[in-house]
Amino acid sequence: MIRIAITAGGTGEQIDGIRRITNLSTGSLGWYCLEAVIRYFKLKSGTDFHVDYIHAENAVIRSLQDTENRQVTFYPVTDAVSVHEAVDDLTRKNKVDYFIHAMAISDFTFSYAVAITRIAEEIEALQKIGGFSDDDVSEVLINPRTRFSDNEKIPSDDDIILGLKRTEKVIPVIKRNNPETFLVGFKLLNDVDEHKLIEAANKLTEKNGCDLVFANMVSAISESSHRGILIQNGRIVARPEGKKQIAETIVETMVELHRSSHS
Amino acid sequence: MIRIAITAGGTGEQIDGIRRITNLSTGSLGWYCLEAVIRYFKLKSGTDFHVDYIHAENAVIRSLQDTENRQVTFYPVTDAVSVHEAVDDLTRKNKVDYFIHAMAISDFTFSYAVAITRIAEEIEALQKIGGFSDDDVSEVLINPRTRFSDNEKIPSDDDIILGLKRTEKVIPVIKRNNPETFLVGFKLLNDVDEHKLIEAANKLTEKNGCDLVFANMVSAISESSHRGILIQNGRIVARPEGKKQIAETIVETMVELHRSSHS
Repeated sequence: MIRIAITAGGTGEQIDGIRRITNLSTGSLGWYCLEAVIRYFKLKSGTDFHVDYIHAENAVIRSLQDTENRQVTFYPVTDAVSVHEAVDDLTRKNKVDYFIHAMAISDFTFSYAVAITRIAEEIEALQKIGGFSDDDVSEVLINPRTRFSDNEKIPSDDDIILGLKRTEKVIPVIKRNNPETFLVGFKLLNDVDEHKLIEAANKLTEKNGCDLVFANMVSAISESSHRGILIQNGRIVARPEGKKQIAETIVETMVELHRSSHS
Repeated sequence: MIRIAITAGGTGEQIDGIRRITNLSTGSLGWYCLEAVIRYFKLKSGTDFHVDYIHAENAVIRSLQDTENRQVTFYPVTDAVSVHEAVDDLTRKNKVDYFIHAMAISDFTFSYAVAITRIAEEIEALQKIGGFSDDDVSEVLINPRTRFSDNEKIPSDDDIILGLKRTEKVIPVIKRNNPETFLVGFKLLNDVDEHKLIEAANKLTEKNGCDLVFANMVSAISESSHRGILIQNGRIVARPEGKKQIAETIVETMVELHRSSHS
């Protein structure tokens, strides 16, 4: 049996129980990938398969036929930590043949909120101990004494700063647990030229062992259209347009490349 | 003709073209208020009416009958600035009889992002000019030279801070433009006791001339249930449960109070 994992949607990081940091991913492309996988393996190749679908709680979920539903396991997740756990658990316990990692996972999670006037006083007080270094300032900026207490709703009577700390990356987990997995990575950048897009895709490939990367720019995504480039080893192998075609191209290309590398 | 304005959903503040600060409001209660308004004015009182529905782009929108649709104008909005504009414009140009202000509008909007190590160096350098005050530190924290440029996707190789500045409040605009409007305010707090909830509702009433406030706590909201208290002049006038009942109670109470104050 062929096992395919897909991640879809965008994570949300809690700030204070009411506010969150989210991103613009809707999970739509991930869902098209799921549909393309089902079409490919069920109709085209007729192979027995199962899909593990790890998705943000608010990601797009459309209806499937009953027979298809039995071939998909859904794993709802929320923030970066929960995705990390779900992916680690899945790839530890199972041999995954293909992993389509389309989810937009927050690079940062909330650490604290503080009023600017309060933390400015805290930093100003560093002078009392004589000279101080930039590391002393960093220490305050990483964990200020004057921060609002956790779960307190942040008052709105002063400008504030939010301290954000990096989340643990999810993508390295995949090949660490399953070196044989065929890994499709995704790269979304703000408006840059194609050269920079390929560079970023190559970096993702080198660091995490991606076998294929779909790279795209924010400006090329709208409700009605979506363009991007599919990159293998620094080479553009396709320029699909529209989410349905993008998903189909990803699935067909990954299966062909995987087969040819094993034949 | 009776004119009713409703705001619904939660705003989102752009951070860098990919990330946003959002809140947990779905717009569901606002939609129930719209349905309750239509039921009340169309079926119960038979009065001619029109609803202006200002809603976040991702707020819940359900279907209405054609005849009802003609009695509602929809205004999609995004961030706090766009809500302020929409409400100011609507209330300047029209006499609004009832205003149900259910939208969760961000108190803060994005100002900048900066790597902690970079801004720590910038603050450390203040020592070179001799002694400095907390105001000097605040100045850096309000607008650091070392900030990432606008629209640059924030790199993830260092912990960061986000500078957030206060948004202009929307609720004072309503009575400033239309002193005769009957204004229903909403107050959502993290877990506090009822006394604090009433205190916060009273503050909202005093500052903005709310005629009625629906106050609730995050812990009392789930997908299947919703509880809160309806407060008029510091006095609890109802304890509705469930979004449908909450909306109906708000609409019935506001019409009764408005009538009795004009008879």
